[in-house]
Amino acid sequence: MIEDQKPSKTPLEALGEFALIKQLTKAAQASLPSTKLGIGDDAAVLSHDGETVVSTDMLVEGVHFDLGYMPLKHLGYKAVVVNLSDIYAMNAQATQVLLSIAVSNRFILEALEELYAGVHLACKTYGVDLVGGDTTSSKQGLQLSVTAIGKVPKKGAVLRSGANENDLLVVSGDLGAAYMGLQVLARENEVFKVNPNHKPDLAPYTYLVERQLKPEARKDIVSLLEVLEVKPTSMIDISDGLSSEVLHLCKQSELGCRVYEEKIPLDPQFISVCEEFKVDSTTIALSGGEDYELLFTIKQEDFDKIKGNPNLSVIGHMTAKGDDANLVTRGNEVIPLKAQGWKAF
Amino acid sequence: MIEDQKPSKTPLEALGEFALIKQLTKAAQASLPSTKLGIGDDAAVLSHDGETVVSTDMLVEGVHFDLGYMPLKHLGYKAVVVNLSDIYAMNAQATQVLLSIAVSNRFILEALEELYAGVHLACKTYGVDLVGGDTTSSKQGLQLSVTAIGKVPKKGAVLRSGANENDLLVVSGDLGAAYMGLQVLARENEVFKVNPNHKPDLAPYTYLVERQLKPEARKDIVSLLEVLEVKPTSMIDISDGLSSEVLHLCKQSELGCRVYEEKIPLDPQFISVCEEFKVDSTTIALSGGEDYELLFTIKQEDFDKIKGNPNLSVIGHMTAKGDDANLVTRGNEVIPLKAQGWKAF
Repeated sequence: MIEDQKPSKTPLEALGEFALIKQLTKAAQASLPSTKLGIGDDAAVLSHDGETVVSTDMLVEGVHFDLGYMPLKHLGYKAVVVNLSDIYAMNAQATQVLLSIAVSNRFILEALEELYAGVHLACKTYGVDLVGGDTTSSKQGLQLSVTAIGKVPKKGAVLRSGANENDLLVVSGDLGAAYMGLQVLARENEVFKVNPNHKPDLAPYTYLVERQLKPEARKDIVSLLEVLEVKPTSMIDISDGLSSEVLHLCKQSELGCRVYEEKIPLDPQFISVCEEFKVDSTTIALSGGEDYELLFTIKQEDFDKIKGNPNLSVIGHMTAKGDDANLVTRGNEVIPLKAQGWKAF
Repeated sequence: MIEDQKPSKTPLEALGEFALIKQLTKAAQASLPSTKLGIGDDAAVLSHDGETVVSTDMLVEGVHFDLGYMPLKHLGYKAVVVNLSDIYAMNAQATQVLLSIAVSNRFILEALEELYAGVHLACKTYGVDLVGGDTTSSKQGLQLSVTAIGKVPKKGAVLRSGANENDLLVVSGDLGAAYMGLQVLARENEVFKVNPNHKPDLAPYTYLVERQLKPEARKDIVSLLEVLEVKPTSMIDISDGLSSEVLHLCKQSELGCRVYEEKIPLDPQFISVCEEFKVDSTTIALSGGEDYELLFTIKQEDFDKIKGNPNLSVIGHMTAKGDDANLVTRGNEVIPLKAQGWKAF
């Protein structure tokens, strides 16, 4: 019998920096008319009518991701998607990304190719061009930095500060699932450490695990709002948990708000897993991060345009300046919203 | 006697992520008309007539810098400057930067304030706005990621690929000094390790050390060329050493070239320190990195416009497609140029 050839393992030292970049980015073909020049010069050249929006994020191994649960291809995909989410949160169209990585020598070329396969897939899925970046070594672990760029018509960007009293507070999709997906993965990992022969059955958790490992940014919501002819008055993406983001809108719009517990959209799988883990689903939906849904406010008169849309839930409304940001519970108690989201330190 | 109050030491955990970002970026006031929205939303909003250029770089402790020699304020300054250099290398005006940092808990707030003081100083010096970024923790050390943005008139960007046969090869400033500055600092550090009471006398090395610790980007050259009405046919900045950058221009313009050893601009201090260290000054000028000068080509008919300018040296010319990139030595030997610049791995 002829043995399968073993997958090759190419140490990064075998390539120079330029050869490495070339190898990793060869799949990046600039395809948008607004990309005048992509990878390969001192800088990329872009041409946007209207205005340009730009955002950047850093992802650090051991802080933002654990390669024990997170396949490299998924990591590459997620790194791009979470940055695109910031662009959509401006009601903008994402157009380009730049990706820098710092990696220790424990990584081989084939591992980085996996990572970039995820990056290229995300770019293709969202119709953005990879136009630049940097590749360097690190002393320890893997660090990623992504810059995302988008375009909006002049004065078309929707800021956090634009909400008005009585505007409706709307959220896309459902909340909390990504956080519970992480809890499921962490539990499986603990079991695996004790018994390496353990075969995890993740079937009951598919949706949650996918929300954690392969989040999607709500490009579709920006398009939907355009079709519905609704221009949000303020918008933010939900990366740190609903409470934290609601508080940002309130603070930057200088208003209070009321969020109704019973209106917060939850997936049935999420609810049953919260029961299994004996945690309160509302608490998780308010404080668990990484859902990458959009939170925005609309004028009351726009309610009819979004009513009944399965992608959108009205969860409350903005109240007067000086008011608190409050949660109205199912038991009709009014309690202040607190930010317990992601703590980087 | 009343004792001086000790400088305060604030652990990063004492602040939340948002308070930390606010503290570090409070000095960032967007001042350019093209900055429609700076720090504080999901993304910054920019408005450039013409085209936008964008570049990004990552700097990793222990790989790109050593905090043993590099004061944090200088590091912040340098991180911005080396990215602006990429923008000027497109013959563009730099307009905005974004800065992300990942830091371990060994850093205190006051250390990061020093770092940002350098960032703000660079922004002020070069007239660019700090419009965004990310602040997160790392498992080990300090990592910085800077994205720089600039603007050029439509089709005004100067690429690496635009050189033509017989174009003159021009370099700004002088070369090799930053590399020798690092050698001086490394030597002092070794002495200090053996004898902590040793007081270094850096006076004979002021220029070299400053080139290493506080490099400047050649914004002035972009302006000068505009005043002189010279549009370079190709351009690159010298971050990895002259050889490496000349080879980039040759490869991307599909030409050969001749560089004349005797024409390479060297500072007298650099020459004498090369003698002291017993290294060949030409080798260092060709291969030592981090000078952040500009290398570009101009049409022969533009020679009279730049002739005699103390900031510019013609070091050679481009030759036909298929030719090699060669160095013509003082002894009139012709030898191929080799890239020995910065190796990240």
